[in-house]
Amino acid sequence: MTLRVGILGATGAVGQKFVELLDGHPAFEIAALAASERSAGKPYREAANWVGSTEMPEAVAEMEVVACEPGLGCDLVFSGLDASAAGEIERAFAEAGVPVISNARNHRMDPAVPLLIPEVNPDHAALVERQGTPGWIVTNPNCSTVGLVMALKPLVDAFGVEAVSVVTMQALSGAGYPGVSSLDALANVVPYIGGEEEKMAAEPLKILGALDGDAIRPAEIAISAQCNRVPVLDGHLECVSVRLREPVSADAVADALASFESPVAGLDLPSAPARPIRVFDDERFPQPRRHALAGGGMQVSVGRVRACPVIGPAGRGFKFVVLSHNTIRGAAGGAILNAELLLAQGRLTAPVVAG
Amino acid sequence: MTLRVGILGATGAVGQKFVELLDGHPAFEIAALAASERSAGKPYREAANWVGSTEMPEAVAEMEVVACEPGLGCDLVFSGLDASAAGEIERAFAEAGVPVISNARNHRMDPAVPLLIPEVNPDHAALVERQGTPGWIVTNPNCSTVGLVMALKPLVDAFGVEAVSVVTMQALSGAGYPGVSSLDALANVVPYIGGEEEKMAAEPLKILGALDGDAIRPAEIAISAQCNRVPVLDGHLECVSVRLREPVSADAVADALASFESPVAGLDLPSAPARPIRVFDDERFPQPRRHALAGGGMQVSVGRVRACPVIGPAGRGFKFVVLSHNTIRGAAGGAILNAELLLAQGRLTAPVVAG
Amino acid sequence: MTLRVGILGATGAVGQKFVELLDGHPAFEIAALAASERSAGKPYREAANWVGSTEMPEAVAEMEVVACEPGLGCDLVFSGLDASAAGEIERAFAEAGVPVISNARNHRMDPAVPLLIPEVNPDHAALVERQGTPGWIVTNPNCSTVGLVMALKPLVDAFGVEAVSVVTMQALSGAGYPGVSSLDALANVVPYIGGEEEKMAAEPLKILGALDGDAIRPAEIAISAQCNRVPVLDGHLECVSVRLREPVSADAVADALASFESPVAGLDLPSAPARPIRVFDDERFPQPRRHALAGGGMQVSVGRVRACPVIGPAGRGFKFVVLSHNTIRGAAGGAILNAELLLAQGRLTAPVVAG
Amino acid sequence: MTLRVGILGATGAVGQKFVELLDGHPAFEIAALAASERSAGKPYREAANWVGSTEMPEAVAEMEVVACEPGLGCDLVFSGLDASAAGEIERAFAEAGVPVISNARNHRMDPAVPLLIPEVNPDHAALVERQGTPGWIVTNPNCSTVGLVMALKPLVDAFGVEAVSVVTMQALSGAGYPGVSSLDALANVVPYIGGEEEKMAAEPLKILGALDGDAIRPAEIAISAQCNRVPVLDGHLECVSVRLREPVSADAVADALASFESPVAGLDLPSAPARPIRVFDDERFPQPRRHALAGGGMQVSVGRVRACPVIGPAGRGFKFVVLSHNTIRGAAGGAILNAELLLAQGRLTAPVVAG
Repeated sequence: MTLRVGILGATGAVGQKFVELLDGHPAFEIAALAASERSAGKPYREAANWVGSTEMPEAVAEMEVVACEPGLGCDLVFSGLDASAAGEIERAFAEAGVPVISNARNHRMDPAVPLLIPEVNPDHAALVERQGTPGWIVTNPNCSTVGLVMALKPLVDAFGVEAVSVVTMQALSGAGYPGVSSLDALANVVPYIGGEEEKMAAEPLKILGALDGDAIRPAEIAISAQCNRVPVLDGHLECVSVRLREPVSADAVADALASFESPVAGLDLPSAPARPIRVFDDERFPQPRRHALAGGGMQVSVGRVRACPVIGPAGRGFKFVVLSHNTIRGAAGGAILNAELLLAQGRLTAPVVAG
Repeated sequence: MTLRVGILGATGAVGQKFVELLDGHPAFEIAALAASERSAGKPYREAANWVGSTEMPEAVAEMEVVACEPGLGCDLVFSGLDASAAGEIERAFAEAGVPVISNARNHRMDPAVPLLIPEVNPDHAALVERQGTPGWIVTNPNCSTVGLVMALKPLVDAFGVEAVSVVTMQALSGAGYPGVSSLDALANVVPYIGGEEEKMAAEPLKILGALDGDAIRPAEIAISAQCNRVPVLDGHLECVSVRLREPVSADAVADALASFESPVAGLDLPSAPARPIRVFDDERFPQPRRHALAGGGMQVSVGRVRACPVIGPAGRGFKFVVLSHNTIRGAAGGAILNAELLLAQGRLTAPVVAG
Repeated sequence: MTLRVGILGATGAVGQKFVELLDGHPAFEIAALAASERSAGKPYREAANWVGSTEMPEAVAEMEVVACEPGLGCDLVFSGLDASAAGEIERAFAEAGVPVISNARNHRMDPAVPLLIPEVNPDHAALVERQGTPGWIVTNPNCSTVGLVMALKPLVDAFGVEAVSVVTMQALSGAGYPGVSSLDALANVVPYIGGEEEKMAAEPLKILGALDGDAIRPAEIAISAQCNRVPVLDGHLECVSVRLREPVSADAVADALASFESPVAGLDLPSAPARPIRVFDDERFPQPRRHALAGGGMQVSVGRVRACPVIGPAGRGFKFVVLSHNTIRGAAGGAILNAELLLAQGRLTAPVVAG
Repeated sequence: MTLRVGILGATGAVGQKFVELLDGHPAFEIAALAASERSAGKPYREAANWVGSTEMPEAVAEMEVVACEPGLGCDLVFSGLDASAAGEIERAFAEAGVPVISNARNHRMDPAVPLLIPEVNPDHAALVERQGTPGWIVTNPNCSTVGLVMALKPLVDAFGVEAVSVVTMQALSGAGYPGVSSLDALANVVPYIGGEEEKMAAEPLKILGALDGDAIRPAEIAISAQCNRVPVLDGHLECVSVRLREPVSADAVADALASFESPVAGLDLPSAPARPIRVFDDERFPQPRRHALAGGGMQVSVGRVRACPVIGPAGRGFKFVVLSHNTIRGAAGGAILNAELLLAQGRLTAPVVAG
């Protein structure tokens, strides 16, 4: 039996990725495509300027786009809404009794809203019970945060992490469509992405924090981020330096990353990669164009694990490269994996009528 | 009166840049174009696969390429030789009495060879007197080092620098021609450049070191570099974090950079930019495509000066972006500026017969 | 003595190119920068998002942007206005007595408006006398038309041209800023540019037409255009096939192109290239990145002249490649050259008070 | 039951594509990976610098690379050899009794060697019986030819085609690895590809020719090709003009293309796309990045069908855009489809011992 899902912001870049990834999903069936008033009433084929390199799925092409208002007849909704609209609309759905699995940033830092990565903090999902609305909201992290946090998690567990310095090289698709002008992008790097560095400094502390009674106690890690836009289509590459709490060898760091087991591996979530993290030996890897799609775009790739003599004392400073797919693991795919976890946890059992 | 100069490795990418930049130079006149046996005997027009976006200068097009052996009849030679050949050939010229201004890495770390940036360590030129050969060798730093060191110099002078962490995004032209395959470059990032991180960790210590009697006492700065190749044509962009020795404000850091005066400004070297460093307020800048050519490709651009909470304690940790043109300031232009300094210092006065 | 010029649409991409190219011009001095209401009142430095790879000229940075209305106190205006606004505004200036040198498409096909390329149809400038307004409008062709027409002109003169088939590969800067989304541009080709093929079929007939009394008698050439957007920054490359009226050899075609003399060469117009057309022997050339800036972006490059067995019978069918810089020769530079011609023809002598 | 296949040139770019596409193939199992002496003896994982964006299949990673000599124990071999080596090696396998399905150009124009596209000329496969060797050679066309010919076939059948003019915009992967230098590729177009225009003029005539007794009677079509390299990763886009033999409407042309049925559709070849040709209505399509992978890279995409007033008289001249995937349909995928056809035709039934 499948759940009926709606997609809020279905015509945008993230919404399209939801449509693409949900096509043929074993547990979720697209029952509603919702977008702005301008698109409402049109067939999806016409309303959406399909930007992907795959075909628009036949099943949705003739579906009529509806407005983003509760009453879609869905068991849950995925939100690919723009931050300018997401705050209120998502709240309205939660109040109407509909679970909202959101990729928007608006509610990420709300104390009662889980900022969820199934492999990292599946227990945080319990926060939804404290939202005080008939439905609830669950969010996934910013596209540049998720790869970093997944690479930090095994190190936090094994050795403790005290400080992180990260420089990102982020793909163009992270800015949506039309997003970055080709005249800014081609043969160029833009050393600034509005709001991104702040998100990268804040979100990991919540995700890596501990659920303590009614609230998350944030992790105590100093984070410094420098974010750049590079002419890459998909895949955020990040140069990371970490200061560990205990001295170890570079091999031990690489081993901790490579042997990381998802705490929810036993749930066999359909979108979860076979292994959450792959560590490369070849020093030329990972590369966005070659490895962003590993594990269906859900695996995080790590390479070049070695000592960093600056961020920490000998044995406690390390640096490496992290790659993750920004529109799959970092957006729609991450949200779908969250929904799969919530379903497995029994939080999405009863079909909701009002949604 | 102009000096007669030869270019070693004249047909390669760096050699071509020497040719381009020396065209119309007020002090140096190209008198010999030297390259491998394969090219010797051909007219330059035919021997060189001209890769620049300007025309090959008329003056050299029909000049016959000669072998890279002393006896060129030049007062000095510029070396754009590959590291595989530069070591011995440059030594041979020095032994034959010819001053060699080299862009190759082979002799950079020789104790008696200046690793020279006129705005940073002009006094190191005096080392040439200790080489013990009739001629001598002077080198300029690696293309990714020079921008970093120029940005560090004002901070070293004003506040002291204890540690540096740098992540580079380097242009394709830094790899020469044909260099990087388009299939590795287009819409991709390669998180590894062979030997580059080692050079960036070592060269700044020599350049920022103190001339102490017969030798350089290296600077004491911990440096960690992570080097990436990005799909940019010209201009290396670097995200830099520094730990200062004294606490200051971010404004003071920006001011120190913006107000930096070249110690050799009074010499009016033809290739020196009006100001060595430009600091941008606009947080989107500098960008390789827009600013690499500032000051004829000889100015270093800095932007986004702000605190870094990870590399140092409050007031001592800062981060910023540095951009410099890799084939001009970072290669041929840097070497020519070195020659101009040596000429102004009186080290290139007497025309040499044997060269 | 210099004329005072205004730039309409000064903050846009074309307007910025006017500013860049007019900096230091011997005959024209920027006296007014006009743009939309939104920009009016701001200093140019703030109103214009400067997109070029050169610096904004100091002389204009603090100039206050004004509205696009007659009364600018200029002797002539250059128009880089968008087609949505150009029609009426340019007409208003002409009616107010101001000569308008426009890059916009709105009036290009008006019977009394010259569509002017100084090297091709300088006599068409006489049309301005028939506009019946105190001022007048002169236009330059679409950016993809000008290179084609300049390459056709010598062939029309020498052998007659009956038919032309052209496939363009056009640079991103031709679409203005922000223009094409980077997600459409990077590693992609878009085989459609709205309105472009129609312009390429129509404009050459007027430009190559004969001034016959009060009107232009269009040239009789069948033209078929296919227009593509490719990931190039500057420079439109075009694959052209032509059917001549008389049989000749490929060498004769190449010679006619290479030996083409501008009919206004004697006027020494400041922006005119030393030679209007350069013909390459090297079959790999011309290339946009290497040759678009030839002759300051005003020279047209041609290569690969050879027989085409399809467009015409033996001796009458030829094909070749044409390259021209789309924002210089194809926009601002072309308009400035037109103004220089009109000045040399005595049509811009008397400073106008009302402008 | 599956046939054992060997891959000649297995470490190169085409060879890797064979490996990728044959992974999990229902009829063919990789039994031997053959390459140059330099690679022989190494595990494939080490010998091949895997350039794809998918993972190297586990099944081949540890397979030992062997020399390209008969005696591989295979029922057939696929050849991804370079033209410099393919001629003799392929002949040697054929003489040793092994069927060779080659992507190399060497034997394409041999009178007794089929130049085969299953949807176009499946009957030409019968030529193999005339090769006079125990084994035989079958070739697929050049990567820029196949898309063109597939689009021409329905027009040849329905209306007759008299002349074709084609301008290509070809992807970088067509040049192999390392192939084109990134400094020639990025933000540039190279208007020349050695030998390509000659292949495009010659190969279609053989493919579209009629099998007449022992030989192919070439089609009588005049073809003119202009070939360009553009910064695209995969997918050759071609602007095509055709002169038909009978007058029709543009709609009829589009219909003939869209309704084209493969003559071998009934064989259900595993690699054949559901429909050979897709015709787009949206004038912005097809685009390489969006549509090259349609039908698993085996479908040909056509768009912008409209009249061309130059190549033919009214009703007989048309132009359109064709896109095909150059390394799948245009190389390894096309060869595999050929093998599937030959298998279905009963030409590959008996396992060969000597191969």
